[in-house]
Formats: sequence, structure tokens, C-alpha cells
Amino acid sequence: MEKKPIYEGKAKQVFTTANPDELVVYFKDDATALNGEKKGTIINKGVLNNKISTFFFELLGKHGIPHHFIRLLSDREMLVKRLDILKVEVVVRNITAGSLAKRIGWEEGKKLSRPVLEMYYKNDELGDPLINDYHIYAMGLAQPEQVAKMAEYALKINSILSGYLKAKKLELIDFKLEFGLHNGEVLLGDEISPDTCRFWDSETGEKLDKDRFRRDLGNVEEAYHEILFRLTGEKA
Amino acid sequence: MEKKPIYEGKAKQVFTTANPDELVVYFKDDATALNGEKKGTIINKGVLNNKISTFFFELLGKHGIPHHFIRLLSDREMLVKRLDILKVEVVVRNITAGSLAKRIGWEEGKKLSRPVLEMYYKNDELGDPLINDYHIYAMGLAQPEQVAKMAEYALKINSILSGYLKAKKLELIDFKLEFGLHNGEVLLGDEISPDTCRFWDSETGEKLDKDRFRRDLGNVEEAYHEILFRLTGEKA
Ligand SMILES: Nc1ncnc2c1ncn2[C@@H]1O[C@H](COP(=O)(O)OP(=O)(O)O)[C@@H](O)[C@H]1O
Ligand SMILES: Nc1ncnc2c1ncn2[C@@H]1O[C@H](COP(=O)(O)OP(=O)(O)O)[C@@H](O)[C@H]1O
Ligand SMILES: [Mg+2]
Ligand SMILES: [Mg+2]
Repeated sequence: MEKKPIYEGKAKQVFTTANPDELVVYFKDDATALNGEKKGTIINKGVLNNKISTFFFELLGKHGIPHHFIRLLSDREMLVKRLDILKVEVVVRNITAGSLAKRIGWEEGKKLSRPVLEMYYKNDELGDPLINDYHIYAMGLAQPEQVAKMAEYALKINSILSGYLKAKKLELIDFKLEFGLHNGEVLLGDEISPDTCRFWDSETGEKLDKDRFRRDLGNVEEAYHEILFRLTGEKA
Repeated sequence: MEKKPIYEGKAKQVFTTANPDELVVYFKDDATALNGEKKGTIINKGVLNNKISTFFFELLGKHGIPHHFIRLLSDREMLVKRLDILKVEVVVRNITAGSLAKRIGWEEGKKLSRPVLEMYYKNDELGDPLINDYHIYAMGLAQPEQVAKMAEYALKINSILSGYLKAKKLELIDFKLEFGLHNGEVLLGDEISPDTCRFWDSETGEKLDKDRFRRDLGNVEEAYHEILFRLTGEKA
């Protein structure tokens, strides 16, 4: 059983491999926003997000965060550990933006006194609603120990990434993580990229993430290139 | 300084008294729904909710829940301890209904395996959005010990009321509470009534609460009378 497609999502495709414990994730150029209402392409996004995610997974691994990444296979493909994805999107925020700004009625760009952790039900039809621990248990999305692990890892990831990015003159505004179970263990999965994080230039405040696409700000591809360049010095 | 109006809300008016530690709450017949879009009157609702709330506060007091209620003053008025209301609405749910059913995509009327506790930001302009502990601390709406107290009281209130109502052949589907600070102590405030609870007849499933008004089901006044009657035997 070689490379059989098992899932096609909004930004990636997932394939089986000869090893039932491992999957291939293929990064596409497709971009969606506004809960799927807005669709488009960001040229080479797949290549860039594959490299950027690889960089972040390796960085987090060095800091003791267990993750699904095994190795890069090609420009657009990575080999990962197969996860049973928990249907909970974990968001950490340092500065108000997007739905948090709307929810609490604060303008964008306000520093939060402490990081804000949020959990969303990963369900496109329902528009990924905000949920709390009680909802998670009522729906059986995850067990209390798993929720605790996700919260612990997410806040630790926030510290690691925020510090690292600051040295690259980037502010980590917020980001979304997905976790899954591999042999009963909670591992970080999915991707970490300008699709799933907000990065603002520390000096100019310029947005260097998918908000350029969501809000038609122009220079979308350039922003993704700039992130890879700041992280690795690489001009993909 | 006697009975000066200090606040007029959607369902009640609040007045000062000669004692700066005490307020008068006056219950109106006004009813609103759909975040204020729908407006109307439920005849004698003020009288009924004043009596029903009085009954519940006294019941909860006997079970050790600290609350603001001091005594009935008239058909539509109660004397209460003045609170600094915490801008957090605390909801407990036993059975799916209303916004929870929409949020998680379950039909109404499904028994939850355990009570679900939710906190909402009490802010009409924002439509009372769901929030979590991190939002509460970021906005400074309440301190961790206060959130813990509200959660503890809310779940205890749910046990007390659910058990009591079951004996009256009523299912407590869900309810909303408000708490406030009085000399630094967290006290239950506001009201507990068919405006703020969902009650379903245990045998017929008939709705006996404000959903009759929200959804134009008819027999609105009758439902409020029925609740008072089941609780106290009184035909107001
Ligand atoms: N290691 C993994 N094992 C299994 N599934 C994964 C793994 N990492 C990510 N996924 C899932 O693969 C899909 C990736 O494709 P994506 O385009 O992001 O999908 P979606 O539109 O559902 O977000 C997601 O559903 C994600 O949860
Ligand atoms: N003991 C109390 N002290 C001060 N304010 C109170 C007390 N109990 C309730 N309140 C507040 O009084 C108002 C009651 O009026 P209501 O019509 O329910 O207002 P609203 O439209 O804001 O919900 C609410 O804002 C409520 O928070
Ligand atoms: Mg995705
Ligand atoms: Mg009210």
C-alpha cells in the first residue's frame, strides 16, 4: 500500500505510505478565508509552508515539544507520524487581532497582559466555534489529561516561538495549533506557517501572514517568502 | 437619599435606598429577545418574576448559597444588597437548547453527560459573546478566585434547583446567573425566573419559559403563572 490519498483539505493533502504509522502531507498553493467563502491561490505557498513548518517543528522538537514531523520528502511534501487528530483547534494570542478583537470589542494590536488561550471546535460546517473544556468533554472531543497537555504545550510553544521570532524582528500575534494522538500520546500535528500564525514586523508593524490574502493587502507571496527568509536566510 | 433610579435595564429597574448598601429592584413586564431585536410585554411578568426569584433565592439561601436578596417589598419590588456586578453571565446547561445546540451542532433536547458551564461577557453591544477564563483575566472582568467561586456556586445551584424542580415535574434545561461583589464577597445577584431559565414539563416536554415569547409559541403568560404555581401553589 503506497501513497494512497486519504484526505484532501483546504491547504493540504494527506497520503498513506507503506508504513501504517506514517503519512505524507502534501502542501498545496490553495488558500481559503472567511470560512471558505473566499478562495484563491498563493503562488508557491505550498513550498514555503512546507519549509517554514519544517523549520518550526525542528525548533520545537529541540525544546522538547513532541510533534508529528519526521522529515522533508520534497519541496511540497513532509513525512509525518499518523495522528488521530483531536477536533480541537488550539489558539494562543499575545496581541488582539481577528476574531478576538471582534469578540471582546477591542481594537486590533492591543497587547494582552498575559497570553490568551482559546479552543475551537474544528468543524467547518459550524464555522469553527469557540468552545470551552465542558463542551469538549460533552462532545467527547478529548479527555481532560489531553486538554491539559494541549494547553501546556500551546503555552510553551508560544514562549519558544515568541522569543525566537522577536530576535528575527517578528512579533508573534497569535497562532493556531492542531494536536493528535499517536499510540495514545498527544503530539503536535498539522502545520505552523503564515497560514496559521499572525506575524507582524516588529518595527513597521507590517503584516507578514495570511491576513494579506484575507484582507486583499497585496504582496501576499512576498510576505511568505519574507518569513522563510527571516527564519532560515533561504530565498525559496 | 431615597429611591433614586440608578439603572434601567431590559427587564428591571434599580433604585437606591436610604441605605447605601441596599438597592431596590423593580421588575417590569417588558420582554426582549434576539439581543434586543424583538420587544414586547408579558402581562404581569414583573409580578411573577419577583415572586419566583424570591422563592429561588430563599431556597438557595437555605442551601448555603450567598445571595443579594433581603426581602420582598411589594408585588414588583425586592430589597437587595448592592453589588458591583461582575460583567460575566454564568450559564449552566443540562440539556441542549438555544445557542449551545447551534454552537455544537446538536439538536435541542439532548441530555448532556455532565452539566456544561459557560461564561459570557455581559455586553449587549457585542451580543454577550462566549468567553473563557483567559478572556476574563485579559479584560479584568473578574479575578481567578472569583471565577472559581462563580463556577462552584453555579454548579451547586444547578444541583439544588434541578433536584427541587424534578419533584415539581419540571426539567431544568439551562439557566443564566449573575454574580457581584459585596464587601469583596461573591454573591449571587439579579434574578432567577422563566426569563433566565429554561423549564420544560417533565412529562409533556412543554416549554414553560421565555422561549414561548422568543419563538411565538403562545400561552406566554400562562407559562410564567404555571411556574409560580408549581413552585409555591400560588395563583398570582
Ligand atoms: N499527522 C497527521 N495525521 C493525520 N492527519 C493530520 C496530521 N496532521 C494534520 N492532519 C490533518 O490533515 C488535514 C490537513 O489538511 P488541511 O488542508 O489543513 O485540512 P483542513 O481543511 O481540514 O484544515 C487536516 O484535517 C489536519 O487535521
Ligand atoms: N444586587 C444588585 N446590585 C446592583 N446591580 C444589580 C444587582 N442585581 C442585579 N443587578 C443589575 O441590575 C440590572 C437589572 O436589570 P435588567 O433589566 O436585568 O438589566 P440588563 O438589561 O442589563 O440585563 C442588571 O444590569 C443587573 O446586572
Ligand atoms: Mg487546516
Ligand atoms: Mg438582565
